[in-house]
Amino acid sequence: MIDTSDRINTALTAAIRAGQAGIAPQKLAQTLEYAVTPGGARIRPTILISVARACGEDQPALTDAAAVALELIHCASLVHDDLPMFDDADMRRGKPTMHRAFSEPLALLSGDSLIVMAFQVLARVTATPDRALGLISILGDRTGMPGGICAGQGWESEAEIDLSAYHQAKTGALFIAATQMGALAAGQDPEPWEELGARIGEAFQVADDLRDALCSADELGKPVGQDDLHGRPNAVQSLGLKGAVTRLDNILAGAIASIPSCPGEAGLAQMVRAYADRMVPASARARLVPGE
Amino acid sequence: MIDTSDRINTALTAAIRAGQAGIAPQKLAQTLEYAVTPGGARIRPTILISVARACGEDQPALTDAAAVALELIHCASLVHDDLPMFDDADMRRGKPTMHRAFSEPLALLSGDSLIVMAFQVLARVTATPDRALGLISILGDRTGMPGGICAGQGWESEAEIDLSAYHQAKTGALFIAATQMGALAAGQDPEPWEELGARIGEAFQVADDLRDALCSADELGKPVGQDDLHGRPNAVQSLGLKGAVTRLDNILAGAIASIPSCPGEAGLAQMVRAYADRMVPASARARLVPGE
Repeated sequence: MIDTSDRINTALTAAIRAGQAGIAPQKLAQTLEYAVTPGGARIRPTILISVARACGEDQPALTDAAAVALELIHCASLVHDDLPMFDDADMRRGKPTMHRAFSEPLALLSGDSLIVMAFQVLARVTATPDRALGLISILGDRTGMPGGICAGQGWESEAEIDLSAYHQAKTGALFIAATQMGALAAGQDPEPWEELGARIGEAFQVADDLRDALCSADELGKPVGQDDLHGRPNAVQSLGLKGAVTRLDNILAGAIASIPSCPGEAGLAQMVRAYADRMVPASARARLVPGE
Repeated sequence: MIDTSDRINTALTAAIRAGQAGIAPQKLAQTLEYAVTPGGARIRPTILISVARACGEDQPALTDAAAVALELIHCASLVHDDLPMFDDADMRRGKPTMHRAFSEPLALLSGDSLIVMAFQVLARVTATPDRALGLISILGDRTGMPGGICAGQGWESEAEIDLSAYHQAKTGALFIAATQMGALAAGQDPEPWEELGARIGEAFQVADDLRDALCSADELGKPVGQDDLHGRPNAVQSLGLKGAVTRLDNILAGAIASIPSCPGEAGLAQMVRAYADRMVPASARARLVPGE
């Protein structure tokens, strides 16, 4: 897999610096950095850049902006979701969650600022305004209502949950954004890239359920068993552990089959396979199916 | 003053409907409408449309999108600011605040969704992508960090407040967005329009302080005396009642003087004068300076 972490972190740092520039309230300025460091796997922007490269990337500054914007939205969602009114999480990525380290007001404002920053970053790349506008449109649709991650979280306030819409919005949305934005950043039609994103999103959800059921808090850097605690729908509950692993493998095969024809097709398939291994750590897989 | 409320409400309703379309979580969908109705004075979008008209508006769909986007950000900020972690307000525009009527999680998600929707609305108008991108950039800068309304709220978490930066970000930012976005929506350079927005914002802040000190809760539809309660800086505290009124009148005179040369200059000056009367209701002014 191509290592894009330097590229992502450099662009991310530049965006955060712009948000801290001049006369700014210092604590809120600090939260911006706190929210995006240390980096998690940066899976979504890595997928985005990988797709852009596979499509023959010709505007690296726009790809960077798209990758940063997507990661900012993801980080904002973590900050808001960790708040006491939602998951009431104490730890995230091995350090105290934002509202524990700062305060609830600063965590809320930090999330708001990061959401806005995502769109600021994309609006600053003016060389191909039609592409930038299209990227903003995709990111907005996969973040807000009626089908983005806000909607996904909103389903948890409903008495009856539409499971398909819930999963698609809560986890799928930003992966679909990743593949579609990658294609569009490279000037390609984003439409045919929806399925790859949706399938990676499905795989990620199943893998998350598996990790939640199998791994220790130390391996994850956050509390485990949260889904069970909050009564959320869960693939392990409905399919059993082995069933969930089989489902994960099937989804990833489908993801690879769905990759649109493009110059970097083979490399992308390799990336998806590599994620399969990262999604469920080998140690957890070994614990589950000894001898295989 | 030209009545633009029908135009604004029609465009706003269309945006909300798009956010509620298809399979969406119903409660969160309802919050979107709840957040924008009943309309307040719609002062910011009215200023925006007035400036666009004065500049020779040629893309009404883009002006509408800009006006709606600005009002959505304003409404989102009210929903988040009313939360228990900030103002802990029970009433807004004569009805229960969002978190009282729904829940804290839904209020937070509603604000998030409205912020995103503002950018979705602008990204959907693709006829002049460079203008749309510029509008997104202005709106983002006046909403997020380091100088937008998020920063304004963030100053309240600092031990020492930069008063000028605080007022400019907290109240001035969206008025500057109003004048600059109005000009850009009509294809004009937004730069010369900053001062008008800044001065209207200053006037609004002083008028808000005056209303807060003078008016009854019935007249405002929200609790009064909140500034005093939260120890925020306040023009009435620093200048006295009469001093604050004199200051308001001086700021508005400066606002009128700052209007850039354009076809609709005279009409804009009239609009600012009309706002002067609306900002501090005649009844309150009469109570303050009897006989005048």
